[in-house]
Amino acid sequence: MDYMKESLRLHEQWGGKIEMTCRVPLETRDDLSLAYTPGVAQPCLEIQKHPEQSFSLTRRGNTVAVVTDGTAVLGLGDIGPEAGMPVMEGKCALFKAFAGVDAIPLCVRSKDVEEIVRTVSLLAGSFGGINLEDIAAPRCFEVERRLKEACDIPVFHDDQHGTAVVVAAAFLNACRLTGRKPQEVRGVVNGVGAAGTAIAGFLLQLGIGELILCDRNGILLAGDPSLSPAHQAMAEKTNPRRVQGGLAQAMKGADLFVGVSAPGIVTGEMIRSMGPAPMVFAMANPVPEIMPQEALEAGAAVVGTGRSDYPNQINNVLAFPGIFRGALDVRARDINGAMLAAAAQAIADYIPAEELTAQNLLPSALDKKVAAAVAAAVAQAARQSGVARL
Amino acid sequence: MDYMKESLRLHEQWGGKIEMTCRVPLETRDDLSLAYTPGVAQPCLEIQKHPEQSFSLTRRGNTVAVVTDGTAVLGLGDIGPEAGMPVMEGKCALFKAFAGVDAIPLCVRSKDVEEIVRTVSLLAGSFGGINLEDIAAPRCFEVERRLKEACDIPVFHDDQHGTAVVVAAAFLNACRLTGRKPQEVRGVVNGVGAAGTAIAGFLLQLGIGELILCDRNGILLAGDPSLSPAHQAMAEKTNPRRVQGGLAQAMKGADLFVGVSAPGIVTGEMIRSMGPAPMVFAMANPVPEIMPQEALEAGAAVVGTGRSDYPNQINNVLAFPGIFRGALDVRARDINGAMLAAAAQAIADYIPAEELTAQNLLPSALDKKVAAAVAAAVAQAARQSGVARL
Repeated sequence: MDYMKESLRLHEQWGGKIEMTCRVPLETRDDLSLAYTPGVAQPCLEIQKHPEQSFSLTRRGNTVAVVTDGTAVLGLGDIGPEAGMPVMEGKCALFKAFAGVDAIPLCVRSKDVEEIVRTVSLLAGSFGGINLEDIAAPRCFEVERRLKEACDIPVFHDDQHGTAVVVAAAFLNACRLTGRKPQEVRGVVNGVGAAGTAIAGFLLQLGIGELILCDRNGILLAGDPSLSPAHQAMAEKTNPRRVQGGLAQAMKGADLFVGVSAPGIVTGEMIRSMGPAPMVFAMANPVPEIMPQEALEAGAAVVGTGRSDYPNQINNVLAFPGIFRGALDVRARDINGAMLAAAAQAIADYIPAEELTAQNLLPSALDKKVAAAVAAAVAQAARQSGVARL
Repeated sequence: MDYMKESLRLHEQWGGKIEMTCRVPLETRDDLSLAYTPGVAQPCLEIQKHPEQSFSLTRRGNTVAVVTDGTAVLGLGDIGPEAGMPVMEGKCALFKAFAGVDAIPLCVRSKDVEEIVRTVSLLAGSFGGINLEDIAAPRCFEVERRLKEACDIPVFHDDQHGTAVVVAAAFLNACRLTGRKPQEVRGVVNGVGAAGTAIAGFLLQLGIGELILCDRNGILLAGDPSLSPAHQAMAEKTNPRRVQGGLAQAMKGADLFVGVSAPGIVTGEMIRSMGPAPMVFAMANPVPEIMPQEALEAGAAVVGTGRSDYPNQINNVLAFPGIFRGALDVRARDINGAMLAAAAQAIADYIPAEELTAQNLLPSALDKKVAAAVAAAVAQAARQSGVARL
């Protein structure tokens, strides 16, 4: 199937992938008096007295805003807020179908951090959470950091943390399969944008033995004055042996390759230069850094990609619906590191030991029961880490 | 029934009166590839090339934002954005039930005109229209004016124009019933906030013979330095005989009383001081300026209120669903005076001559076919006045 052509045809036919519906009867005079005036005054007054009641007396407690500025949409780059809407609607449709979350797409016509933060924070009282989406790095880091400070509801940038959670789940299960501990692993992350930065942070949190980051300009090295502030910060936490050069140098002897970069830039030779039985997660879309067959032939023990037509699809849909479901269920004030770690572990644990193989590292992206397992783990972590209000 | 108590109980049970739903299948790998990546890239690129395609390739063309700052919610005043949400959800539910419009409630945590305008205009690319709601006067006038300039989608403040349209419809039919022409009518509007100002403007547009405005400080008089700028502007267009005093003075000899003010402030004596067979629209909620029975006993020819338990309910639900339905149907850039006039006429004309009585000036607020009639008239007026894009 030509997905592009067929998708356009379907979008023309659908006229929108989501729809707001009415949950209450509005047929009789009493119906109107109860759902609207004069009766509605009572829940209004109740919320005025107890603002947290807005979570239960309105839809707020089940509602998430999906917010973009349209600057990093899929692999298409900065296509603007209106053009980002089909992706935002798709995301909202997935939120509903996988986790019963009401998600509302908001495309902001600004690229200014201050304006984006102000706009979203002024609307935070209407939502139970904020899912940031397809905002370009490094702006996305500051938008997320400042919104987390400004809002007392969870703020989550899926391109960063959703991706990192699923990569972490794949990594945990690849370690389990190959008998490694994270502490024994030397890893390389290629691509240090939103996803790469979050993945690196998560791998460090999991205690990975060593990590080297690489981008199109080569290996990140602490103290390199040509690095951006965001890359400086990452360089200081990584590459302790101060390896220099490009991706080929970074990968020599490594046990793990994570690519969030560009099609075809990893060769079989580079895989062969890695340590024994390496783990390869090549997530460039739609064409990975190296095709699974080639990586396996070059000795990779496990290979994951972003694609649904190969085993081990690393798909954010395994994470974000359950993460927000769990956060909303306990009315969390934040989505913190403990909740993300719990989500990754829940996704990994979803594959029972007896079913764990090199072709079955992760649950299927179509398995809607994953979200419930993730939600339960995230809710528990929220409670244990003190950010749950319920 | 105790509407207040029962409404609170129902709101607790409902957990939100609206719900976002998914319109597309998300069961198979192909489903995901078509509604989301990689297929979704094609509609994105299409919108990037032709931004107006966002109206048809996403839900934008059927979607309206319902925006408040929570400062003038029902008769409750400034109760804040979260506490305004039950009303906004109710409005969104009515939009759907009466006109199939997807409406999204947004409560803005600011009372600053600049911030509200900026927030809403930055989001305008996500919506086909903006319905402003429960924003206090005089701020609402500037918010609306500036948003209409900033946005190329319709911006409509329902408390002003929705109310004015329904009052105008009631007035047109009361004139029809009592054999008057608007030009022969002397009218009084008591209460010069959002609704009163818009009603006055609409009555002037309909060519009313004379109009006097009154608020708690008495009759508005051109040149009075104690008036606010908004009231100054209205004073200049009204009260040509320079009548002075309070409401009692204003009403002497008048043919029409419109109250958007306070309970019980009109007496039978004041009605008796009006001209013969006066028209009385007493819309203070929940207790009108004068109860219908008392006004009728004092000689009123017709009486309308905001209440559903008396004849001639002046309810905005007769107007806003159809107005937005019509505007969205032709992808209007604006909701202008011609469209509002068409809406009022359509509501009035919905009552056939043979059914027009003093007890049946207006269609029932429960009659969902009214919206279609209003929409057709509004769409035609949009086309004729050059603001339709379809």
